[in-house]
Parts: sequence; structure tokens; C-alpha cells
Amino acid sequence: MARRDFYDDPAAPPPNSIVPAVTAFVTDDQHRLLLVHRTDNDRWALPGGAVELGESVTQTAVREVREETGIDIEVTGLVGVYSDPRHIIAYDDGEVRQQFAICVRAKMLGGTLAGDSESTEVRWVRPTEVDQLDLHPTQRIRIDHGLRLPEADPYVG
Amino acid sequence: MARRDFYDDPAAPPPNSIVPAVTAFVTDDQHRLLLVHRTDNDRWALPGGAVELGESVTQTAVREVREETGIDIEVTGLVGVYSDPRHIIAYDDGEVRQQFAICVRAKMLGGTLAGDSESTEVRWVRPTEVDQLDLHPTQRIRIDHGLRLPEADPYVG
Repeated sequence: MARRDFYDDPAAPPPNSIVPAVTAFVTDDQHRLLLVHRTDNDRWALPGGAVELGESVTQTAVREVREETGIDIEVTGLVGVYSDPRHIIAYDDGEVRQQFAICVRAKMLGGTLAGDSESTEVRWVRPTEVDQLDLHPTQRIRIDHGLRLPEADPYVG
Repeated sequence: MARRDFYDDPAAPPPNSIVPAVTAFVTDDQHRLLLVHRTDNDRWALPGGAVELGESVTQTAVREVREETGIDIEVTGLVGVYSDPRHIIAYDDGEVRQQFAICVRAKMLGGTLAGDSESTEVRWVRPTEVDQLDLHPTQRIRIDHGLRLPEADPYVG
């Protein structure tokens, strides 16, 4: 399903839903970051998705990263809580979501890099390479926080 | 509206909704904690409520604490993210929510203590007095984390 992201844009439609989502800032033992190339908005992003009934934030992170990238992770902490109502995501079917994402910190345990239908490509990226990728501003903020904030000082906004 | 809280209870109905909520761990300059006596389950709890369309987690915390207690706050950090699917809240109208709460840390800025229809009583409580109050286990966990965890080490579960 196609999506359009708006950020602080007067042309954004008013939101009609808030769906809790989880994104994961996953690093490997070489301090590289796990990113996916999303098919729904043709940009690079942290892996993640909506929380399903019956699962916790930690379980969502583990499931989504496994599905989108083939990588098994362990959640180790929080990068932040991102609930800026100026970030709007409009879908084909009329749903207009207001951002509500928990970004967790995680480390790779195992698995083999492999994309799925939501991510055409998955890649381990060095921090110095991030700026060369096409990222939505709201993804860039979370990656900046993951790279720069101390583990113990998560963002809330 | 009446509610019933279940925690790790085989008799709990299956969840049919996830509604992001915010609770606030608010302290004053004497390190006392702001608690409300909820009318909907007749127990003491941290002030808080559901995130509304158009507002951020921080804005929800400020609004709910103002409405339920009369106190103005500033959000200073995170106590944790609480998304245990074993915590189920069943309402009269058939909605069965799975817990999804962000607990923020906040300090009192001003205002005058006053309850509303959701809270029959509001009170500043010393940490040593908390054990004497009737609290749901999921509220007690957040208060324990707020009192004991370092500011910079929030819970994610």
C-alpha cells in the first residue's frame, strides 16, 4: 500500500488514527547500523512496524526486524519516544496516521541479511555513510539520536 | 465508565484494541509523588490518560495532569514504556484494551491541587507512604521504577 509522509506541512490532511509502532536501531559488532529500503515510500529507514494485538514493544521489534531483514536481535534499551503530531502518514485507503513510534536500541544476535516485500534491500551501514542515503527527516532524527545520545538518555517528544 | 483491570489472568478477555496512553510520575520540590484516586476502578494511580489526535506524549501528560489534579508540570524524561499484553483493561462497552503506556517523569511547576470526575481525590504522597495505598500491580511497577531507577535508565517492556 502506498504511503505519503508529511512533516510540519500545512498541506497534510488531518489525522484520523494513532497506531503505536516500533522502530529498531540495530547495530552489529562492527557498530554498523541495520537499514531497509522501503518499497512503500522508496526511502531508507530503520526496520519496524505496528504493534499487533497480543505483543509487547520488545516482541514487535524482534518480529519486525526478523521479517524485514532476516536478522535476530535482542532489545537493550530505548532511543526515544516519537509522537510529534506534525508527522502525518497518509495511506491509499483514507487512513491518516499521526506518528506514534517507540524507537528501541538493539543488538544483532544472528540471522542472515534478507529483505521481504516491504523492504527491497537491507544493508548494514556505517555511521559515516548515513548522510549519503535518502532518509525521511523523521528517520534521520531517530538515527541521529541513536548515534549521538548516550544509551541512557532517551528522547521523549 | 466502569473498567476492570486484569494482569496475567487466564480469565481476561482477549484484547481488541491498543490505545496509546501516557502516565506521569510527577514530583514536587519535597520529592513527594502526585497520585489520584480513580473513580473508575476505585484505586490509587499515577495521573494520565489516552493520547488524543493532534497531541504529542508530552502534551498529553501536561493536559491530563492539569485536568485530573490541577497541577501544571514540565516533562523531564522517561520512566519507561509499558506494553505488557498480559495487562488487559475491559470496559463496559465491550472494548478490551491491551496496555500501551508511556510513563514520563515530570516536575511540578505550579497550580493548586484539585480533583475532577475521574479522580475523587488527589494527593501528594511521600515515597514511604506508597505501600499503604491500594494500587494496581501495573501502577506499582511504574512507581517502583520512578522511585528506584536512575533518571537515565528507563524501562522498556
